[in-house]
Amino acid sequence: MQRRYSLDISARLLRTEGFIDGRWVSAASTFPVLDPATGEEVAKVSDCGAREAKDAVSGAYKAFHSWKNHTAKERSILLRKWFDLITQNKEDLAKLITAECGKPMTESLGEIAYSAAFVEWFSEEARRVYGDIVAPQAKDRKILIVKQPVGVASIITPWNFPSAMITRKVGAALAVGCTVVVKPAEDTPLSALALAELSVQAGIPPGVINVVPCSREKTPAVGEVLCTDPLVAKISFTGSTATGKILLKHAAGSVKRVSMELGGHAPFIVFDSADVDKAVAGAMASKFRNSGQTCVCSNRFLVQSGIHDSFVEKLGKAMDVELRVGHGSEPTTTQGPLINVRAAEKVESQIVDAVSQGAVIVRGGKRLKGSFMQPTLLSKVTTDMLCMQEETFGPLVPVVKFNTEQEALDIANASQVGLAGYFYSRDIGQIWRVAEQMEVGMVGVNEGMISSPEAPFGGVKQSGLGREGSKYGVDEYLEIKIILFSYLK
Amino acid sequence: MQRRYSLDISARLLRTEGFIDGRWVSAASTFPVLDPATGEEVAKVSDCGAREAKDAVSGAYKAFHSWKNHTAKERSILLRKWFDLITQNKEDLAKLITAECGKPMTESLGEIAYSAAFVEWFSEEARRVYGDIVAPQAKDRKILIVKQPVGVASIITPWNFPSAMITRKVGAALAVGCTVVVKPAEDTPLSALALAELSVQAGIPPGVINVVPCSREKTPAVGEVLCTDPLVAKISFTGSTATGKILLKHAAGSVKRVSMELGGHAPFIVFDSADVDKAVAGAMASKFRNSGQTCVCSNRFLVQSGIHDSFVEKLGKAMDVELRVGHGSEPTTTQGPLINVRAAEKVESQIVDAVSQGAVIVRGGKRLKGSFMQPTLLSKVTTDMLCMQEETFGPLVPVVKFNTEQEALDIANASQVGLAGYFYSRDIGQIWRVAEQMEVGMVGVNEGMISSPEAPFGGVKQSGLGREGSKYGVDEYLEIKIILFSYLK
Amino acid sequence: MQRRYSLDISARLLRTEGFIDGRWVSAASTFPVLDPATGEEVAKVSDCGAREAKDAVSGAYKAFHSWKNHTAKERSILLRKWFDLITQNKEDLAKLITAECGKPMTESLGEIAYSAAFVEWFSEEARRVYGDIVAPQAKDRKILIVKQPVGVASIITPWNFPSAMITRKVGAALAVGCTVVVKPAEDTPLSALALAELSVQAGIPPGVINVVPCSREKTPAVGEVLCTDPLVAKISFTGSTATGKILLKHAAGSVKRVSMELGGHAPFIVFDSADVDKAVAGAMASKFRNSGQTCVCSNRFLVQSGIHDSFVEKLGKAMDVELRVGHGSEPTTTQGPLINVRAAEKVESQIVDAVSQGAVIVRGGKRLKGSFMQPTLLSKVTTDMLCMQEETFGPLVPVVKFNTEQEALDIANASQVGLAGYFYSRDIGQIWRVAEQMEVGMVGVNEGMISSPEAPFGGVKQSGLGREGSKYGVDEYLEIKIILFSYLK
Amino acid sequence: MQRRYSLDISARLLRTEGFIDGRWVSAASTFPVLDPATGEEVAKVSDCGAREAKDAVSGAYKAFHSWKNHTAKERSILLRKWFDLITQNKEDLAKLITAECGKPMTESLGEIAYSAAFVEWFSEEARRVYGDIVAPQAKDRKILIVKQPVGVASIITPWNFPSAMITRKVGAALAVGCTVVVKPAEDTPLSALALAELSVQAGIPPGVINVVPCSREKTPAVGEVLCTDPLVAKISFTGSTATGKILLKHAAGSVKRVSMELGGHAPFIVFDSADVDKAVAGAMASKFRNSGQTCVCSNRFLVQSGIHDSFVEKLGKAMDVELRVGHGSEPTTTQGPLINVRAAEKVESQIVDAVSQGAVIVRGGKRLKGSFMQPTLLSKVTTDMLCMQEETFGPLVPVVKFNTEQEALDIANASQVGLAGYFYSRDIGQIWRVAEQMEVGMVGVNEGMISSPEAPFGGVKQSGLGREGSKYGVDEYLEIKIILFSYLK
Repeated sequence: MQRRYSLDISARLLRTEGFIDGRWVSAASTFPVLDPATGEEVAKVSDCGAREAKDAVSGAYKAFHSWKNHTAKERSILLRKWFDLITQNKEDLAKLITAECGKPMTESLGEIAYSAAFVEWFSEEARRVYGDIVAPQAKDRKILIVKQPVGVASIITPWNFPSAMITRKVGAALAVGCTVVVKPAEDTPLSALALAELSVQAGIPPGVINVVPCSREKTPAVGEVLCTDPLVAKISFTGSTATGKILLKHAAGSVKRVSMELGGHAPFIVFDSADVDKAVAGAMASKFRNSGQTCVCSNRFLVQSGIHDSFVEKLGKAMDVELRVGHGSEPTTTQGPLINVRAAEKVESQIVDAVSQGAVIVRGGKRLKGSFMQPTLLSKVTTDMLCMQEETFGPLVPVVKFNTEQEALDIANASQVGLAGYFYSRDIGQIWRVAEQMEVGMVGVNEGMISSPEAPFGGVKQSGLGREGSKYGVDEYLEIKIILFSYLK
Repeated sequence: MQRRYSLDISARLLRTEGFIDGRWVSAASTFPVLDPATGEEVAKVSDCGAREAKDAVSGAYKAFHSWKNHTAKERSILLRKWFDLITQNKEDLAKLITAECGKPMTESLGEIAYSAAFVEWFSEEARRVYGDIVAPQAKDRKILIVKQPVGVASIITPWNFPSAMITRKVGAALAVGCTVVVKPAEDTPLSALALAELSVQAGIPPGVINVVPCSREKTPAVGEVLCTDPLVAKISFTGSTATGKILLKHAAGSVKRVSMELGGHAPFIVFDSADVDKAVAGAMASKFRNSGQTCVCSNRFLVQSGIHDSFVEKLGKAMDVELRVGHGSEPTTTQGPLINVRAAEKVESQIVDAVSQGAVIVRGGKRLKGSFMQPTLLSKVTTDMLCMQEETFGPLVPVVKFNTEQEALDIANASQVGLAGYFYSRDIGQIWRVAEQMEVGMVGVNEGMISSPEAPFGGVKQSGLGREGSKYGVDEYLEIKIILFSYLK
Repeated sequence: MQRRYSLDISARLLRTEGFIDGRWVSAASTFPVLDPATGEEVAKVSDCGAREAKDAVSGAYKAFHSWKNHTAKERSILLRKWFDLITQNKEDLAKLITAECGKPMTESLGEIAYSAAFVEWFSEEARRVYGDIVAPQAKDRKILIVKQPVGVASIITPWNFPSAMITRKVGAALAVGCTVVVKPAEDTPLSALALAELSVQAGIPPGVINVVPCSREKTPAVGEVLCTDPLVAKISFTGSTATGKILLKHAAGSVKRVSMELGGHAPFIVFDSADVDKAVAGAMASKFRNSGQTCVCSNRFLVQSGIHDSFVEKLGKAMDVELRVGHGSEPTTTQGPLINVRAAEKVESQIVDAVSQGAVIVRGGKRLKGSFMQPTLLSKVTTDMLCMQEETFGPLVPVVKFNTEQEALDIANASQVGLAGYFYSRDIGQIWRVAEQMEVGMVGVNEGMISSPEAPFGGVKQSGLGREGSKYGVDEYLEIKIILFSYLK
Repeated sequence: MQRRYSLDISARLLRTEGFIDGRWVSAASTFPVLDPATGEEVAKVSDCGAREAKDAVSGAYKAFHSWKNHTAKERSILLRKWFDLITQNKEDLAKLITAECGKPMTESLGEIAYSAAFVEWFSEEARRVYGDIVAPQAKDRKILIVKQPVGVASIITPWNFPSAMITRKVGAALAVGCTVVVKPAEDTPLSALALAELSVQAGIPPGVINVVPCSREKTPAVGEVLCTDPLVAKISFTGSTATGKILLKHAAGSVKRVSMELGGHAPFIVFDSADVDKAVAGAMASKFRNSGQTCVCSNRFLVQSGIHDSFVEKLGKAMDVELRVGHGSEPTTTQGPLINVRAAEKVESQIVDAVSQGAVIVRGGKRLKGSFMQPTLLSKVTTDMLCMQEETFGPLVPVVKFNTEQEALDIANASQVGLAGYFYSRDIGQIWRVAEQMEVGMVGVNEGMISSPEAPFGGVKQSGLGREGSKYGVDEYLEIKIILFSYLK
């Protein structure tokens, strides 16, 4: 697959410097952003370090004192303008995503719509942060509960949704009066910087949004500043559970508030009572988005014996018909590359492990050139295979056959993480039972796509802390304060 | 002050063993509980270690699976029975508090009423954990948000409220279906064990409440189990900021949910427009409860120049008239001992430091025998004195004179912690301004006592994470789960 | 069935006078309370008129000004005492219900538990009336929303739940600080008066609860006072739609707040996918409680063709096995009398009408002595028969056979009222579709008993206005008030 | 004042026919819309009658079944487009208001901003209609509470806010899925029709909004249809208390849901502790908007003796400086005409009555040409004068002097209505006391303008039923439905 993919976007959106306190700032060095499909360099970006991170925190702290005193309506209007601009520039923003993260343009456009939707949602939530008035036990008292922004928030985000993971956090933070320092993934800084540029155009004041792109090498230093600086009040991170634990330890030293969206290992259960065609459609949607590189991707497929063979056969056919591997810029592509070669190697090694233990390759099974990977369907998978033990983050469907509802639940819950889970059934009793008992934060019932701005996103167990989006999303950026009046008759 | 204070309570409430999975369990050794007023031994208590802690966690985990499946109404009824029994046994429970913590009986009775009130409150909250139904973006979908108990909670509590700090946490946890392992402070295990005994009488099932008393020596090992065991889902701690940070680091390793109520350094501001008599009464209430050993005690007194002299004079007189130092069992006592000699020495050293820098002793100023301390009033205090920099946890009133509202706010907010704050003013504009700008979780306006079950308790900055009591208290023990239905027209 | 049923209860609970402003008041005349099973007189009760009604309103108005200033906690405690006393006296209170309303003792005991549960629920809700604080559009403003009790509430209740219909309203009213004047049904004043007596014992202050029993003759005059007196702020009525309309017109003249729980005509739909045994059990529970005399009783049975015959056969057998007609005091009785002969005649006439148009009597079909009626099952019923057009309020099961889901929905919704509805199905898609489209306030899915204190009770269309019970129940007795502060920097 | 005021607006916004089921419909006759300043005819408008009203109801009913099935997001987007169009056409819409209602252009522009703000607010509320999930008492049950649109709403609105009173209702109704039939005041149909035209441009589907303008003569017939037609589920009315009572009686016959915003009689209290200049500014804002023709206008001024003379003097001067009577189209005008001659005569008669009983004219006092009225300030007013007994709806400030807080409260509360109230004080104790005790739905503390989309608007006593705007506004258009699942383990 030779490089013929130019990044044809408005110059104003192709930002390559850090964005600190309202200014575009060059760092001492740069790092390359690569097209994961080709390995070619897309851009050189300023490689911010601890110093830039501190400057960004200072800028955010200074801006906090005026931003929190904007009225909620004022913040709402500015967020809506930002939303409008993101929507207007969706083509260019999508191209940036495809360029730096590799996903097909259709998905990139989908991500921008999804990303913008959080800004819209939180522009509306801004005006709906309600305090409470509580009945006191003593006469002549009043108890008021107000909610105030926590302060500067450090926002650390991953490469698989280079735009939406930022707006889901930043939208909430800004809505309630916090200011932010964003550290985008080293693979995908361009989307973050373009969002910052649009925030300027929207009129969001200097210092409210700061972005400090940096290379893998500088990430630990920058991360430490963002998690320990005394001016930072809050950390919100989306990424791996391993990194999450490091940040939590950093945060402990100054008792900072922390939100974490970490890894998943989602079960996808198909019961005998399911509509198999719907289940196949759901499996396709849930597994192959972003070539399987999302934290809510189905990672373990459990299919009841009565419909197992039918499901496997139909899923194989659907994969044949619907999936096209290629560069994300090609209109026909549905499966882009994985983020890098290492990622593809991991999937490959899971397949090798499974086959060595008796799994059968029904479709695919091979690594392709570079970081591309064949969409793969395995049957006769057992729970002790690697692919059932760790997150795959790639286009692999391992199918385990089971007999009873309890057996499926036991397998599904045998994990230290619990982000998303899916199952297909038409029986009302089974549906309530299984939905209640799945140890995850998000359950899709007869549905493979579960995320939207209205619904709280987040996991249980080691999949994270806190929730994003929805009416609960702003809570992560608010402190509850009581004001108790005694009014002296 | 010679020992003549016997602990005359019902034998059934004087429990000295660990309480694990519904059984009273002896440990290999014991540790002494001392009367802080006399240093005499009150009782010997089983010194639980890591092994007992693990057993307790296992018991709690096993019980969790049935306790969470009780209906909310069933849990509500059991909590109310516990509340009724605590209320019926208030005299004995208060005696235990006075014996092990030293506070005057009136205050101990007050603490039991306060402690019981949390059990009552959460017995009612149990039935009021509401999920949500959210408008989806797609037709033929339903988004349900349910709230489920997080699992086993480790509850680590301090000596200054040996009863109430337990019920404020355990009440919330049990209400929503969590089970608990309580590690009481080494100074005050008896109150915790008596509460456990009453829970048995109330019919709360085995394993739902576990208590592991231990000595200072064994605390690190027990604490580590409670913060790292994979079966523990949640940690709730009240105590010092320093210890809180250690627990946070432990918790990070397995991404556990954490609530923290840590140290305070409360400002108490009196503005010229205040009613001085009310302010004096508020200062007395806020400062001298439990001899100044509460995390919400006023620690820094800022008085505006126009009424400064009047306030100091009246406060001195009120101290003369209202305060009586003595053993907590004496009916006339209002000021018991500090928890131990070290605590009294800390207060003394703050006084010495202040005086050496120019502060004037208006009342008191001396350490008395053992762990007793004279209630002390200092004027001409400046912000660089030790007593303005660190939590005193003793009966010391350091008064700083100020001129402008902004000056008072600047001093008040110059702290890394922010739990409670108080101020007196009659002017509506000033009241809103100051209440909004104080960087604390709880503000008393013309009021020195601010805590009640209806109001969320907790701090900002390094004073903690999360809120206790109120309608928000149960959130700390709940996970949010979405169930998304796609319903296949 | 000869009379051998004495009313053996504590004298203190057998109250026969009006209860006005804390005193038991004789009216100029009395009216008899009859045992509906025998026609014998149970007691003579003071026949209150407009004068007593006005006195009661005055008493309530006077008491309002102190009751609303009780703290929520104080009101909560008094309501809980009332709850405790009702529970302690459940046997006697149940006997009163059976004596004056006729229902079997098991059901009467059930009603007392249900009745008490509302007092318990609202004792807890009292402390949970939360105001809001809203983000203003202008700086230096605060918008507070407080909720205040509306004032004196007139409570007009029916005979079929002589106790619970009172506590469901009065519990809510008292919880938030309203005072009440209760006009019980002329058939069943004794339960109301006994509740008032227990409220005295609980310490609820004079004037807070008033009861004005009266005969059918005096009802219009008393009703008019209760709906038009300027001191009355709120009317809450449960009863027939016809009477409800009269009261609404009265209320219009002074713009009073009104809640109405009026008639129902509940469909009970059994789809082919249903578990037929569960459906039969649900039909029994839903239809034969209180001999079919509840507003949520299933009134129209629609059964899909595939399981129609099986359902009818099994339901007939269940009726044979489970139903025993007799006096409510007999331990074996499950079906007491209807409230009076007129009620039985109405059921009889519906049967005659149906049979004349082709319906087939599968079970029963006959009137028995006095106001007793055979439990009756009709098949081949069509929608133009009388029993499908009007509320039956008796033990009649008319079964209509249908073919498609849409057909069942069309029949179910072809009514001007919409209180409860039930259906049986196991298919998740059908369940959501039907539950959404049924034009009723309460839907039971695979369930024939739907009412509990936690769930809002009430109907759509001409079945009423407002909701009772649940967290919404108190709203009917509250006014929303905003307090907007401008605080003059 | 000779006519030189042409109505120069876009032809597309000058609609003069009824708008029924998506079509502009001519009636058999027309009625004139007059410029209240000149009496000249502005336009002839179709005079709809009962037949058109029925057609509109039918159209709304038909549209309801598809509109309610739009997703909340779809409705949100359409409402926002409508908001955008109203904002873009604000100049023309304001001209229409000034032409038909007479208010100065500045106020008309203000009304359009305010009017649009409700559409914006409810476009956001559309997505925030949350149902609940309630903890059941029985295992294996689920209680879901969903909220559904009530159906067709009749919207009957007044002339004093020809645009905003419509959007405040219609915005809420449409947001949740209801459809509407609007009957604008006979004086001001043009604003309503222009809003309908913009709704078409926004893409709101046919039948969702219907407008039936009619003359005073046809109003009773049209009103009766709108309040009694079986297809109408809900009535929302803003207008006089007298008319409100008639509509309530109509509504009673079919148990329709009703919201009412009726007359006010707002007290404006100035306490000795007030900032007099702020109080004068507040009095100006509260009294003279729309020449005193708003239901929340201060109608009774109560001034404490200590600052009475100062307040009267300063208010008189402010009236001299700030008020300019004239045609609303003149840029300098602040006081337009009253709506008609009758309105001016009513104000005049109140002045004559007051003066005859001893009141002193401090400023103004005279009727001017046509429906113009001099802004008037009266002192030495007593509570038995007509102006203290009835709503003035004109530019009259009657000042009563009082001595004690209780006296002021007694006067303020001596009214059968209770919409808005205002008071000025700086003392926190007095502020809470007075704010709590004022018997009104809306209290302004140190503030004369209290209405905004975020705050619930509405009154107590005979000032109305229900609340508009805010998060509570949608409740008026929603039914609560429970769905109880029993899920058959």
